[in-house]
Amino acid sequence: MPALDVAGEFETIETLLRPLAHPEWGRGLVDDVAVLPSRPGYDLVLTKDAIVEGVHFLPDDPLDTVARKLLRVNLSDLAAKGAEAFGYLLACAWSERCGWPEREAFAAGLAQDQARFGVFLMGGDTVKTPGPAAFSLTALGWVPAGGAVSRAGAEAGDLVFVTGTIGDGLLGLQAARGQLTLDPERLAFLIDHYRQPTPQQDFAEVIAAHATAAADVSDGLVADLTHIANASGVAIDLKLDSLPLSAAARAWFEARVDPQAALEDLATGGDDYQIVFTAPARLVETLRREADRRRVRLTLLGEVRVGAGVTVSYGGRPLTPGRAGWTHG
Amino acid sequence: MPALDVAGEFETIETLLRPLAHPEWGRGLVDDVAVLPSRPGYDLVLTKDAIVEGVHFLPDDPLDTVARKLLRVNLSDLAAKGAEAFGYLLACAWSERCGWPEREAFAAGLAQDQARFGVFLMGGDTVKTPGPAAFSLTALGWVPAGGAVSRAGAEAGDLVFVTGTIGDGLLGLQAARGQLTLDPERLAFLIDHYRQPTPQQDFAEVIAAHATAAADVSDGLVADLTHIANASGVAIDLKLDSLPLSAAARAWFEARVDPQAALEDLATGGDDYQIVFTAPARLVETLRREADRRRVRLTLLGEVRVGAGVTVSYGGRPLTPGRAGWTHG
Repeated sequence: MPALDVAGEFETIETLLRPLAHPEWGRGLVDDVAVLPSRPGYDLVLTKDAIVEGVHFLPDDPLDTVARKLLRVNLSDLAAKGAEAFGYLLACAWSERCGWPEREAFAAGLAQDQARFGVFLMGGDTVKTPGPAAFSLTALGWVPAGGAVSRAGAEAGDLVFVTGTIGDGLLGLQAARGQLTLDPERLAFLIDHYRQPTPQQDFAEVIAAHATAAADVSDGLVADLTHIANASGVAIDLKLDSLPLSAAARAWFEARVDPQAALEDLATGGDDYQIVFTAPARLVETLRREADRRRVRLTLLGEVRVGAGVTVSYGGRPLTPGRAGWTHG
Repeated sequence: MPALDVAGEFETIETLLRPLAHPEWGRGLVDDVAVLPSRPGYDLVLTKDAIVEGVHFLPDDPLDTVARKLLRVNLSDLAAKGAEAFGYLLACAWSERCGWPEREAFAAGLAQDQARFGVFLMGGDTVKTPGPAAFSLTALGWVPAGGAVSRAGAEAGDLVFVTGTIGDGLLGLQAARGQLTLDPERLAFLIDHYRQPTPQQDFAEVIAAHATAAADVSDGLVADLTHIANASGVAIDLKLDSLPLSAAARAWFEARVDPQAALEDLATGGDDYQIVFTAPARLVETLRREADRRRVRLTLLGEVRVGAGVTVSYGGRPLTPGRAGWTHG
C-alpha cells in the first residue's frame, strides 16, 4: 500500500536494501515478490517474528544491533527445527527517529549478518509510522523432506539437553537497562548477548538428525520446555542445579543470597536463543561428539517421563510451581 | 521474542488464530514455524506488506475490514504475478484499542476471506505495541515453474490492459474520510472498495498464461505502469480517455469542472488492486474471451513502444509530466 513518504521508501529500497537482495530469487526487490524454485527432497520451513521499539528492544539500542537481533532470533527458530536458513523477507515500519543514518546502520547490520550466516534478503515492505518503530521478519530455511523437528515428538525415556548457556538473555536485558552491578567486561558480554544473540545455526543438522522434539529458548527455558511437554503429551523433569551458566552469569549468581531463586530467574527469563531438545538416551555419546566437533557446549538438563507438565527440582527436591517466575512476565 | 502480555498473546493464538491454521502445514500454530512440502513443477511466490494505523488504514476502520484488506492487498500482489495463493503468515502488533472484541473481529474477517479466497494461516507472531496498531502479512502462492510474471517483460508492440475499474481506491479513501458528496449508495460502494478491495484472483491464470509484464495497481496506475516501463526498458503510452470507471466514479467524474484533472487524480490515486499488464497485440481477442468467461472487465489502455517512461495523453494530446499527481503523495 502507498506510504506517506514514498520517496524515502524508494531510496531506502534502492540504496540500502537492494544490495542485500538474493541475486536470483529476490528479483532485485523490483517486483514486489520473491520467486523460489521448488527443491525436491526438501521441505521449506518458514517462521515470522515481529518486534516493537520499547517492547522488544530499547529506544536507545543501535539500529544495526536491532536488525541483527531480529534476523538472529528468526534464524534461531529455524535452527531449532533442524532447518538450514537461506533467506528472509523484511517489513520495516520506520519511526521518526529512523532517519537516513539509522536506516544505513540497520542495513549495515543486516549485511554483516548475511555474510556471517549465509542468508539473503528476498523481499518485503518499508513504510513509516508515527509511533514506535516496528519490524517484522519472515525467515526461510530448507530441511530434508519430513525432517523438520517439532515440539511434539518427545517420548518417555528421552533425555533433555540444551546448547550453550542459560540466563544471559535476562541478565543482558538488566545490564542494558543499567540495573546490574558487575565488572565492565562481564557487563559488556551480557549486553552484547542481549543485543546480538548467536543462533545455534551450526547445530541445526544435529537437531535434524537426532532430536525427537526441540524449541529455541525464547520465552524462557521452563516455558519452552512446557511447550514441548504439552505438545508431546509427556512430563519433563528439569534439574535447576544443571543449568549451564556463562562466566558472567556465574559471577552474578555467586553474589546472590538465594541461589535457588537466582536459578529460577535465569530458567524463566527468556531471550537465550539456545536450542532445548529431547533425544533418546542411547544417543548421549553421539550428541556429545557432534557438539564437541562444533565447539558447542551441550548440557544434560533432565529427562522425559510419562505424565504431564514440567517439574523443576533443585538439590533433588521438586519445587512448587506457580511462582511469579514460572510464566514469563 | 517474549511480549509484555504473554497471556493475551497465548489466548489470541489459541482461541482466535488456531481455527484459521492450515490443517497440516500450519502445524496448529504450536510450533513457531510452518513446514511446506516441496511441489515439483511449481515455484513458490512470496510477498510481504506492512500496514500501520493512521498511515494505511484509519483509526476508526473496523478491524475485520483492516484484516481483510491486509490479506487482499497481498493476494492482489500474487494474482498480478500469475500465482495461485494458498496461505499466509501474519504478524500483529496490537495497540491499546485492540481489546478482545477487536481481536475477535480481526480473526472473523480473516475467517471470511479464507473461505472466500481459499487460503489458510500458516504461522506468525502476535505482540503488543504502545503505539498505533501495525500488521504485516507474508502471502504464499504457487505458479507453474518459471511462469511468474515480472514487471520486466514488456516489449515494444505489446498492448496495455487493466482489469476492473480505476479510481475507486482514491475516491473510497475520500469517502471514508467524509470528504465526498455523492448519493449514499455510491458512497457506500466506494467506502467498501477502500476497506475491502477485491483482488483479481480468478484472473491470475490468464496473467500467467499470456502477460509479458504485470503489476497490481497499488501505488497508482501511472506509478505502477512506470515501474513496468522502467523494469522492461520500454516506453508506455497511456490514454487517460480510456480509464475504466465504476458507476460511482463516473457520477463523481461527471460533476467535475476539469475532466482532465479529474482523470489524472484517478490515474495516480492508487489502492485500486486491479492488475495492469502488457500482452502481445495478437492476443486481444483471447484476452477478451478469457475476461468475459470470468466476468472480469478488461480495458485496453494504451501500448508499449521503444523508448523510456510513461506518456499520458488526453484527447489525443500528450500531457506534461511532473504534476503533483504523477508520483503518489
